[in-house]
Amino acid sequence: MKTYQLAPDAGIDGIAQVELPDPEPGAGEVLIGVRATSLNYRDLGIARRGQQKIIPLSDGAGEVIAVGDRVTQLSVGDRVAGCFFSTWHDGAITAEHQQSALGGAVDGMLAQQVVLPADGVVRMPAYMSYEEAATLPCAAVTAWNAMFEQAGLRPGQTVLLLGTGGVSVVGLQLATIAGVRTIITSSSHEKLARARELGADGTVNYTEREDWERDVLDLTDGHGVDLVLEVGGEETLGKSMAATRVGGDVVLIGRIASGGGQGQPWPMVVRSLNLTGVYVGSRVMLEDMNRALALHEVHPVIDRVFDFGDAVDAYRYLESQAHFGKVVIRVQ
Amino acid sequence: MKTYQLAPDAGIDGIAQVELPDPEPGAGEVLIGVRATSLNYRDLGIARRGQQKIIPLSDGAGEVIAVGDRVTQLSVGDRVAGCFFSTWHDGAITAEHQQSALGGAVDGMLAQQVVLPADGVVRMPAYMSYEEAATLPCAAVTAWNAMFEQAGLRPGQTVLLLGTGGVSVVGLQLATIAGVRTIITSSSHEKLARARELGADGTVNYTEREDWERDVLDLTDGHGVDLVLEVGGEETLGKSMAATRVGGDVVLIGRIASGGGQGQPWPMVVRSLNLTGVYVGSRVMLEDMNRALALHEVHPVIDRVFDFGDAVDAYRYLESQAHFGKVVIRVQ
Amino acid sequence: MKTYQLAPDAGIDGIAQVELPDPEPGAGEVLIGVRATSLNYRDLGIARRGQQKIIPLSDGAGEVIAVGDRVTQLSVGDRVAGCFFSTWHDGAITAEHQQSALGGAVDGMLAQQVVLPADGVVRMPAYMSYEEAATLPCAAVTAWNAMFEQAGLRPGQTVLLLGTGGVSVVGLQLATIAGVRTIITSSSHEKLARARELGADGTVNYTEREDWERDVLDLTDGHGVDLVLEVGGEETLGKSMAATRVGGDVVLIGRIASGGGQGQPWPMVVRSLNLTGVYVGSRVMLEDMNRALALHEVHPVIDRVFDFGDAVDAYRYLESQAHFGKVVIRVQ
Amino acid sequence: MKTYQLAPDAGIDGIAQVELPDPEPGAGEVLIGVRATSLNYRDLGIARRGQQKIIPLSDGAGEVIAVGDRVTQLSVGDRVAGCFFSTWHDGAITAEHQQSALGGAVDGMLAQQVVLPADGVVRMPAYMSYEEAATLPCAAVTAWNAMFEQAGLRPGQTVLLLGTGGVSVVGLQLATIAGVRTIITSSSHEKLARARELGADGTVNYTEREDWERDVLDLTDGHGVDLVLEVGGEETLGKSMAATRVGGDVVLIGRIASGGGQGQPWPMVVRSLNLTGVYVGSRVMLEDMNRALALHEVHPVIDRVFDFGDAVDAYRYLESQAHFGKVVIRVQ
Repeated sequence: MKTYQLAPDAGIDGIAQVELPDPEPGAGEVLIGVRATSLNYRDLGIARRGQQKIIPLSDGAGEVIAVGDRVTQLSVGDRVAGCFFSTWHDGAITAEHQQSALGGAVDGMLAQQVVLPADGVVRMPAYMSYEEAATLPCAAVTAWNAMFEQAGLRPGQTVLLLGTGGVSVVGLQLATIAGVRTIITSSSHEKLARARELGADGTVNYTEREDWERDVLDLTDGHGVDLVLEVGGEETLGKSMAATRVGGDVVLIGRIASGGGQGQPWPMVVRSLNLTGVYVGSRVMLEDMNRALALHEVHPVIDRVFDFGDAVDAYRYLESQAHFGKVVIRVQ
Repeated sequence: MKTYQLAPDAGIDGIAQVELPDPEPGAGEVLIGVRATSLNYRDLGIARRGQQKIIPLSDGAGEVIAVGDRVTQLSVGDRVAGCFFSTWHDGAITAEHQQSALGGAVDGMLAQQVVLPADGVVRMPAYMSYEEAATLPCAAVTAWNAMFEQAGLRPGQTVLLLGTGGVSVVGLQLATIAGVRTIITSSSHEKLARARELGADGTVNYTEREDWERDVLDLTDGHGVDLVLEVGGEETLGKSMAATRVGGDVVLIGRIASGGGQGQPWPMVVRSLNLTGVYVGSRVMLEDMNRALALHEVHPVIDRVFDFGDAVDAYRYLESQAHFGKVVIRVQ
Repeated sequence: MKTYQLAPDAGIDGIAQVELPDPEPGAGEVLIGVRATSLNYRDLGIARRGQQKIIPLSDGAGEVIAVGDRVTQLSVGDRVAGCFFSTWHDGAITAEHQQSALGGAVDGMLAQQVVLPADGVVRMPAYMSYEEAATLPCAAVTAWNAMFEQAGLRPGQTVLLLGTGGVSVVGLQLATIAGVRTIITSSSHEKLARARELGADGTVNYTEREDWERDVLDLTDGHGVDLVLEVGGEETLGKSMAATRVGGDVVLIGRIASGGGQGQPWPMVVRSLNLTGVYVGSRVMLEDMNRALALHEVHPVIDRVFDFGDAVDAYRYLESQAHFGKVVIRVQ
Repeated sequence: MKTYQLAPDAGIDGIAQVELPDPEPGAGEVLIGVRATSLNYRDLGIARRGQQKIIPLSDGAGEVIAVGDRVTQLSVGDRVAGCFFSTWHDGAITAEHQQSALGGAVDGMLAQQVVLPADGVVRMPAYMSYEEAATLPCAAVTAWNAMFEQAGLRPGQTVLLLGTGGVSVVGLQLATIAGVRTIITSSSHEKLARARELGADGTVNYTEREDWERDVLDLTDGHGVDLVLEVGGEETLGKSMAATRVGGDVVLIGRIASGGGQGQPWPMVVRSLNLTGVYVGSRVMLEDMNRALALHEVHPVIDRVFDFGDAVDAYRYLESQAHFGKVVIRVQ
């Protein structure tokens, strides 16, 4: 089968297509014919820093083409997506679960065929295409975990979404079906207009005002939001904290640039803030989220689909930050 | 001022209009000119069993017409509703909070003027009429507490609502804005049709099938619902439990008939069910719910409005169970 | 190897020793040389009602004597105990997890050798004997789940324990190390004296007073306890509820006799009680509990140890209810 | 009556004794004859930065000497302590609650007489002296909130306590009665020896090793602790995070020095840490904690008691950081 591999110290340009033997499922495992994968910022970081010869990408969807012994929950022909962590089924994350992260700790989904544990795989919502289902395991589960597991958002509360990348756009869609009020930022009026079409209640163009967190406070009668999905990192953390209500949550997500260091802890105490690092989520969270998406027939927002042969172009496109929503690679 | 009072051992027919001196607010209190009140099943029970000479009804909305010393959070002219429990502000319910239940432990809202502690009163959503706001403090807070505080419902989960009384209809509205799937029962196809217009995803006519809980199971692929708002009591409790998923919640609400006793605990253990008695909710729950209703501009469903002079007719109408949603008494 | 099996419709006397082929571990599985098992009331019920030819008993401890492919977390020679549910690792219980209950849904531990999934097995605390470790998977995890997962007990709160069976005695030990106040009931002054030696703060002899729940209320200044571990079932449920504070928890445990039906739901609502069916617990709960026991070097209370050949006598002894703590069968 | 007041911009030396009229309780208020107060680091910060002419100190205990109208829960002669926030009774903290912080937002306890809302006052445990009860409202409630409300610690888990100031020492006492494992740091072997006498399971002298967080990891088999009570601020935050397990909690407490900036958010994400700012706690937390202390007759650790006339010396002594536990001022 054809697959891609990262080469140590070679960066994005070192991502190369190779031919590997077809994998076979052992007991408790399934073989998946991958149809589509999607990219996350994490994948850029892994490609840049990578020291391992590994198949990249955590996110992918496809069809079960063989099952190993003792697999009862899935059958050949089932349309499935892989979980970000193959071994994190439910409950709290542990250091052991982290050793099963696809496309990082272990081989990922940018291949024609992959073998995964049957209990590290979920059925796709029936109405979704493979491309759509392939966008969910990392970005959407992260947003779900942050909003409903960590912060326990309820209708009428407010979430602040930073930018229009994968996590923020699907976060906007999930918050909207949950009756949660949404405020989203961007440097582009056009992207903000698209966000409003998806349901955004408030929009802030952060290029128009240095202290754009004041706009967020104004939109919440000075109280601040209940939750920030903080994907920006140290450049925005101080502003995110200032835009959050007393007792509110700031969830830190994804690869955050080093440097800056505005994260002074003192405001956290007087304002009783809660900062939590969220590292994707469990299989049960993916299942719960899929059920919610299916009830409302939400279609994940795909910005662009690349062919399997153009995987490196997909990485470069994500790097450009021109996208709104998700960048997908069709596999077969 | 004019008011109604319950007479000991006199039942519904003993509810009589009387003239009492105008009340005056002390320190920390406000005087409210009541504009509308609403009825709950609880009020029937209190009238029937009542041993106290008390002003009835927990639910009412009106205008602040005077404030006592040290009141800073409210001003004359504010449009407000009273909380069911004047002293339960936030956190867990206690026996002490229960001693402040309007229209039961202490005087209620069926009067032209009432005095309440300023921190036992909330501002009404601006877009609501007094009649609408008067429907919320008991039934809607009960539904909110059950769904979001006790069961922590999330989008994509399923709630079962029994009948089309006050709690079930506003529960349907709240679940709908929260992206929660709803199944509702009634003996009337017409009422079920109205429920569908309000957003009900599944409907069950319980007159058509003795074991109507099977219909609920069928609507959930055999798994059962995540939560039942159990307003029916012992006649329905066994069926409600059978219609709930492993690990799910059955919230017991309101006045439940004595007798029967189908509540065998054994199925609770093998199916890990959780039964919780919910007794309305706190002021913070009322505020949180109002914020959610306001974001989506939900209008509570009023079945019929009676004049102040026809209060006893309103009681009789509620008793008939012909209503869909809430029964209101306009005060002035 | 030697093992016992239940015979359909044969009751306790039908439990017979048989010779079966030695089992072999597959991928992800371990082979355990069982050293000790313990009995729970559940096992009496399964033996009486049993329709399946099954190896009984959920609880057992022993030594790993072989490991299958892909097992990295355990090695030959490890001292281990089996989890009650082989597939419930963490998070919430599901119907699927219930299909892995040892000695009920699948073969149990009353055998010289058993094969279990490696992730359905935990290391024993080093200071415990096999007999002690064999008492924990069902009764102790049930008590832990009820007290710390469901009720979230904190130091200074009060738990009511009914009788001196396996769940109540280990519940007393666990509550004591957690700084929780304990009240325990028995019909025997001698057993109550032993309970006091184990740390019981209050004792109630329920043969001395029909309304012994009043004694419990007196011991809590009339407020009631925060939690009842309700192992008695319908005979005691009404009293347990009356002995619980407003907003408190009653956790229903184990096999509860059918019949009676004192479980009137109405007091639940006015007193905002929470009834939860607890069905043992997950592997993570067993691990967390072992860590707590180990920190305080708690030794589970064993009433009597039977030889492997006398397994039926052990059943009969448990049935007599003469025990205080756990009944153990030594296997080899 | 005699009291102290802070003078704007005058620092600790500007704290001066003055004579003010005796206060009188209004409706819902009580007058307390203060017997003892205690100091917290916060009080140093307020004195240094203070811009208001205010009576300092949040913590105090005394006797009720008069009650206003409508006060039913307290009587003359009751031995009481004031809550840190007069208006935060239960539930989540809000910006409004913060406006009632004694000795900061409003007048505090360093006076012979104070008037407080009756529901902002709690009864002292009967076995405690006024000096002991005066140590609890700020430091001990903070430790309770962090350990049992935020982190939900259970027996067998591990908490890291930094230094031997007021929060850490009472945190050690509270964790010990809860069966929680404790690791404490100090620069003094003598103080660590005292901590071991109070129940500390592990001790770390941070002067002996630059990377003392490795000692903490070694004491937890490399996993890290479940919770850090982070009182040190930016100098220690990086080490505290490194010493915490995947998914664990770091609770930020008290006045944290500005500057440094080791709070890099990235480790939070990969290790799924949770940082929470805890700002003391509610009245219900103080009551719950008192109940726990009373069950185990814990005596808070008082380092030194100063006379009312020597209040400034008490401030200077706290500033020296020579203390172990609490610094108290006897009022009368």
